[in-house]
Amino acid sequence: MKKALLEKINNKTATVGIIGMGYVGLPLALEFAEKGFLTIGFDIDEKKIPLLNSGSSYINHIKADKIKKVVDSKKFFATTDFSKLTETDAIIICVPTPLNEHREPDMTYIENSGKVIAKYLKAGQFVALESSTYPGTTEEILQPLFEEAPIIQGSGKNNFTVGKDFYLAFSPEREDPNNLKYSTATIPKVVGGVTPDCLEIALSLYNHVIIQTVPVSSPRAAEATKLLENIYRSINIALVNELKMVFERMDIDVWEVVDAAATKPFGFQAFYPGPGLGGHCIPIDPFYLTWKAREYDINTKFIELAGEINTFMPYYVIEKAAEVLNKNKKSLNGSKILILGAAYKKDIDDMRESPSLKLIELLREKGAVVDYNDPFVPKLPQTRKYNYEMESVELTEKNLKSYDLILLSTDHTKYDYKFISENSNLILDTRNAFEKAGIKNSKIYKG
Amino acid sequence: MKKALLEKINNKTATVGIIGMGYVGLPLALEFAEKGFLTIGFDIDEKKIPLLNSGSSYINHIKADKIKKVVDSKKFFATTDFSKLTETDAIIICVPTPLNEHREPDMTYIENSGKVIAKYLKAGQFVALESSTYPGTTEEILQPLFEEAPIIQGSGKNNFTVGKDFYLAFSPEREDPNNLKYSTATIPKVVGGVTPDCLEIALSLYNHVIIQTVPVSSPRAAEATKLLENIYRSINIALVNELKMVFERMDIDVWEVVDAAATKPFGFQAFYPGPGLGGHCIPIDPFYLTWKAREYDINTKFIELAGEINTFMPYYVIEKAAEVLNKNKKSLNGSKILILGAAYKKDIDDMRESPSLKLIELLREKGAVVDYNDPFVPKLPQTRKYNYEMESVELTEKNLKSYDLILLSTDHTKYDYKFISENSNLILDTRNAFEKAGIKNSKIYKG
Repeated sequence: MKKALLEKINNKTATVGIIGMGYVGLPLALEFAEKGFLTIGFDIDEKKIPLLNSGSSYINHIKADKIKKVVDSKKFFATTDFSKLTETDAIIICVPTPLNEHREPDMTYIENSGKVIAKYLKAGQFVALESSTYPGTTEEILQPLFEEAPIIQGSGKNNFTVGKDFYLAFSPEREDPNNLKYSTATIPKVVGGVTPDCLEIALSLYNHVIIQTVPVSSPRAAEATKLLENIYRSINIALVNELKMVFERMDIDVWEVVDAAATKPFGFQAFYPGPGLGGHCIPIDPFYLTWKAREYDINTKFIELAGEINTFMPYYVIEKAAEVLNKNKKSLNGSKILILGAAYKKDIDDMRESPSLKLIELLREKGAVVDYNDPFVPKLPQTRKYNYEMESVELTEKNLKSYDLILLSTDHTKYDYKFISENSNLILDTRNAFEKAGIKNSKIYKG
Repeated sequence: MKKALLEKINNKTATVGIIGMGYVGLPLALEFAEKGFLTIGFDIDEKKIPLLNSGSSYINHIKADKIKKVVDSKKFFATTDFSKLTETDAIIICVPTPLNEHREPDMTYIENSGKVIAKYLKAGQFVALESSTYPGTTEEILQPLFEEAPIIQGSGKNNFTVGKDFYLAFSPEREDPNNLKYSTATIPKVVGGVTPDCLEIALSLYNHVIIQTVPVSSPRAAEATKLLENIYRSINIALVNELKMVFERMDIDVWEVVDAAATKPFGFQAFYPGPGLGGHCIPIDPFYLTWKAREYDINTKFIELAGEINTFMPYYVIEKAAEVLNKNKKSLNGSKILILGAAYKKDIDDMRESPSLKLIELLREKGAVVDYNDPFVPKLPQTRKYNYEMESVELTEKNLKSYDLILLSTDHTKYDYKFISENSNLILDTRNAFEKAGIKNSKIYKG
């Protein structure tokens, strides 16, 4: 069984199915298709399928012609028909793992993927999970489902055994949208198999598309690795956010200090403060470990503290906004405020967990009249939490001058900081973007 | 005034005085002397002076012949006679900044240095402070002392003015003992002057001996930079220490996970867990900011949490020791335990704040009979807190076999891990040193 699958993988006659055509699944599917594997993209979102099959992209940093090429070469197509999973030899799950409103893991997407795979699972198939999740997910949720696959399918009384009848691994995605130096294929990939055979197959598959695979001893270890990476970021961002508040009282510029520390050639990595955490990983993943740790009667104090501080940052920005308006004898209540940048980080259109959305909410609560501008986000999309019907305001001289305060939330490279500063009454810069652009004057406050 | 001093610095006729002939001051003095500056080393420790003046070293990683060379060339001598400060043009303070028993800054060394400099300060002299300390020290403690120098000296009623009559800067040391890649001269150096002239002089002086100077806007910013560097380390070490405890419950090896995460080519820096924090910087410096922040009614929660976790680690190691002994039906009480490694980090002889000292205390409290071995530390030195009269035990087959438990605290490269494992009854490895040396068996526990 293993030998047959390995052979198919080695000679690229294996068909690869990828569940979830988002930021992770789509670029991975394109890699496999480009390398010559027939690749099927599965998604429950019906809007995505015709776009993909006509060679269009719905993700800003993934170019349409990359999709078009593999569609034209018939190496890739997308579908909502999960019965086509029976046509695949290897299945990779790239679905979201959000938190619910109580900061608990929402495993719906992984569970639903597991169930639909179990419904169609064939002897000899390989399955990998890539979603960031708590240690134990692969072995505690997917493995039992797949071992019961013959029962679920009604095709037999005997269970499957992992490592014998099917193969299972966890391999965390490390996508970094808009990273110009590293992309899917060039970022080393950690892989943990449930059994040594599972690991062997996983490595042989990923080795076709990834520059370097990094085997670890278990799916658990691979799951923990991804969490550590994001916990590290979450905590270090929270640390500089806390230090921003401490240093500000001492009349010390935190950005200057971080830049100076970054000249140390060892033992330091620079993180910069901001208006709050955004994106799909850093604000969310750490709490997967917190949740799981409770099962073992243990707390994750650093994660909790980082969450506390990072969650507080938008409130801090609002305090600063009130403070700089107050210096000009104005109140938040009734002020016209323009938020620059809606996306959660610069030069992308990704709105997931963007702190700008929280800023709009908080400013409105205080009675401010709020608009926004983002060259990448013409209209604010509806999210799980927010549904603003707002459109990006044009950055003209007249428009800029009409606001009491310009609040820079996302430091897009496209912004003409000189023009903005020349035509604004007052600026609150949460990213140190103006000074980085060489602009410093008494209208610009940092915060 | 400034021009004359700059000229002396530029043509290397300036005499440099360095106060504090320890881990920081001595290598810096050697750099200046090697570059051709007449350099005087000041220290209150009378034992050090004849050693230095005869070309001997009392610091393991500083080679005697380096000292001998500059003594022989008459470019360097050491003295306890601080009146010789009048013979210097530039004075650099490299004294310790410990914490007292209430975790408050002990500024005695800086204050005493300041006072003795003020006693001898001449118009036109330059003074730099290198000791890690809270933001504000240079301007709040040294500057007033030096401005009053003429009064202190009884030589006049007029005060000195900083930037006019004398020059003052802060430039944090970044020494990393035993770092084979970077040393005093090749580590970029952050410099903050009280006035632009102070900065100019500081840069011109340090540029003679340091590969790259990094000017910042104020001594405050330079002070904060050094603290950020060490806070970053303290917090990231505490984070992996916390995760060690969390992952252990989940049957996940934290060292494997850190190594796997370290394959991410961006956005991650690896830190490893251990038996507690040691050394003169990381356990201490962060609390300088905590102390100062209270003056501004603000807390430094990350520093407090890191302190809490790192301080707990030796207790955790003791729990683990009790656990592995218990598995073998033994109690801590009455067990013979050998601690491997007394220095706070590998391959050095530095005992400052070493967690091994705490481990000895805790083990004895529980009734264990404790010995230690350290190839770099033949006898345990007396420290502010501990005075054990213990000598390093030889690592023979017979000796090793006589202990119920070998507790590895410091992973010196010199250790023959194979030999140790073959001749030990039970091992608790707090550094993952045995596995790194390729040795894994049922007698070795990690913790």
